Amino acid sequence: MSATPPALTYFPAARPATVEAVNIARRPRVGHIAFLNCLPIYWGLARTGALLDVDLHRAPPDELSRRLVAGDLDIGPITLVEYLKHADDLLLIPDPAVAADGPVLSVNLVSRTPLADLPAAPRVSLASTSRTGVLLGRMLLEDRYGRTPAYTVTAPDLDSALADADAAVLIGDEALRVHHDPDGHHVLDLAAEWKDWTGLPMVFAVWAVRRDYAEAHPGLVKDVHLAFRDSVRRSREEIGEVVASAARWEPFPPAALAEYFERLQFGLSERHLAGLREFASRASRYADIAPLRAGGPEFFATGPDTSL
Amino acid sequence: MSATPPALTYFPAARPATVEAVNIARRPRVGHIAFLNCLPIYWGLARTGALLDVDLHRAPPDELSRRLVAGDLDIGPITLVEYLKHADDLLLIPDPAVAADGPVLSVNLVSRTPLADLPAAPRVSLASTSRTGVLLGRMLLEDRYGRTPAYTVTAPDLDSALADADAAVLIGDEALRVHHDPDGHHVLDLAAEWKDWTGLPMVFAVWAVRRDYAEAHPGLVKDVHLAFRDSVRRSREEIGEVVASAARWEPFPPAALAEYFERLQFGLSERHLAGLREFASRASRYADIAPLRAGGPEFFATGPDTSL
Repeated sequence: MSATPPALTYFPAARPATVEAVNIARRPRVGHIAFLNCLPIYWGLARTGALLDVDLHRAPPDELSRRLVAGDLDIGPITLVEYLKHADDLLLIPDPAVAADGPVLSVNLVSRTPLADLPAAPRVSLASTSRTGVLLGRMLLEDRYGRTPAYTVTAPDLDSALADADAAVLIGDEALRVHHDPDGHHVLDLAAEWKDWTGLPMVFAVWAVRRDYAEAHPGLVKDVHLAFRDSVRRSREEIGEVVASAARWEPFPPAALAEYFERLQFGLSERHLAGLREFASRASRYADIAPLRAGGPEFFATGPDTSL
Repeated sequence: MSATPPALTYFPAARPATVEAVNIARRPRVGHIAFLNCLPIYWGLARTGALLDVDLHRAPPDELSRRLVAGDLDIGPITLVEYLKHADDLLLIPDPAVAADGPVLSVNLVSRTPLADLPAAPRVSLASTSRTGVLLGRMLLEDRYGRTPAYTVTAPDLDSALADADAAVLIGDEALRVHHDPDGHHVLDLAAEWKDWTGLPMVFAVWAVRRDYAEAHPGLVKDVHLAFRDSVRRSREEIGEVVASAARWEPFPPAALAEYFERLQFGLSERHLAGLREFASRASRYADIAPLRAGGPEFFATGPDTSL
């Protein structure tokens, strides 16, 4: 079972069945993306003791999406495209989310020539496994700009991405780096393009709870939701500290980090929901995604907030 | 790279090499055992923001030991037996540790008959992969009580462990449960036996830093050490809250949890070091363990504490 005694576990999976009769509570299994864009979501959790009441699973986002869908997590982030595919099994939690109402800085189409000069059938590399960012790039290239690209998947750095391609969808560190240091490249912010096209914010990821878990443990889900909401609120109030903390470890100067955190939005307003619905409606033409149900997306009902 | 854009990573492993020239800092990779006995070690980390400055890897203890030895972690817990095998590559950090000066409650030899009635060659099941707890059990059975056991490995519950054995080394939840509810079994606390035998505390796990990492990043190691020390200190000051938090999730009543946390010791005094050296000296007769170097174990030199 373990190498270090006394090994009384609070890993829920390792708890012997024999103890279940005594105390059946287990901490909710919650996913966390340890990426810079999610630092403000984690900020308060690491300062209030909220982490003591969750079984936190840190992993890359595609892995967390997979685990939530598989039922190996109870609550967690899920990239919008995967949420749309599995909306029947999930309820959205209103906070947090990862969205932008205009430029997001780190989801970019990068090319050597201006967009207008791209050929009718450009070679486009997808330097990311991000399903939502990649689908957003496809929508814009195909529907908005009338291109018929041939796509390839490459490593997530600019040189690899443009080695054999006319343009590349770049996401994350490298996209933000190229935004700040384009070195002659043309950089198109895809969230800004989305807003220009639709008038709406772009929602990249949502937090959801499995429907079966929410029905069995509404109080625990509410606690997690309020902890997340409080965490994001604190990160806004203490943004100078958040920036200083990030600048200690990340390859960007404080001003760039401050701008990035300012661009990112971590909640879902009515406008964000309209953007989410618009994306869902368009996405069903590209991917194996059923339309959202009427009145969707469906939320977990947190109920009156008595904690604040 | 990821399913959720904008995926600017603070997973160090995922950072592209291209950004290294800008900011070469990366968070120390620190192991954490999410077992109840380590809750007081985590307590303060989750309340001070200290977790924001480490790349925390939560895993079962044997896995963390393996990763530290392999160089996949920089700092972390390691079961004493594994530390002794790899002492040349590691420096101890004075806090935290997991030890007991007398009963530890959750590392037990359990049998249906009194110890004195065990046969000369008893069948003993090892219901744990804990190398230190198991070796302690062997030492006591063979050296102190003059038995020549035949060992088998079983599942970590009492019924499995005693199904085909005269006695069982039990560790963790199940051992603590049997301590509180022996149901006619004889329960021998192995840390208490160790103290009765040697007059010394038993050290089950230590925290160590890889020697190469400590030489390259002494300031970061010091920060982590002080964060851990502060965390344990807070857990002592706020023991009522620690107990209440644990009781929300664990299958033991508050009084049992309070007693358990009181028994556990999380630092290394001179007496603990004497216990560690005594165990090391005896262990080399049972396992592939070289004697500690003269003056060992070797510590990371934190230097004067300017943070408190």
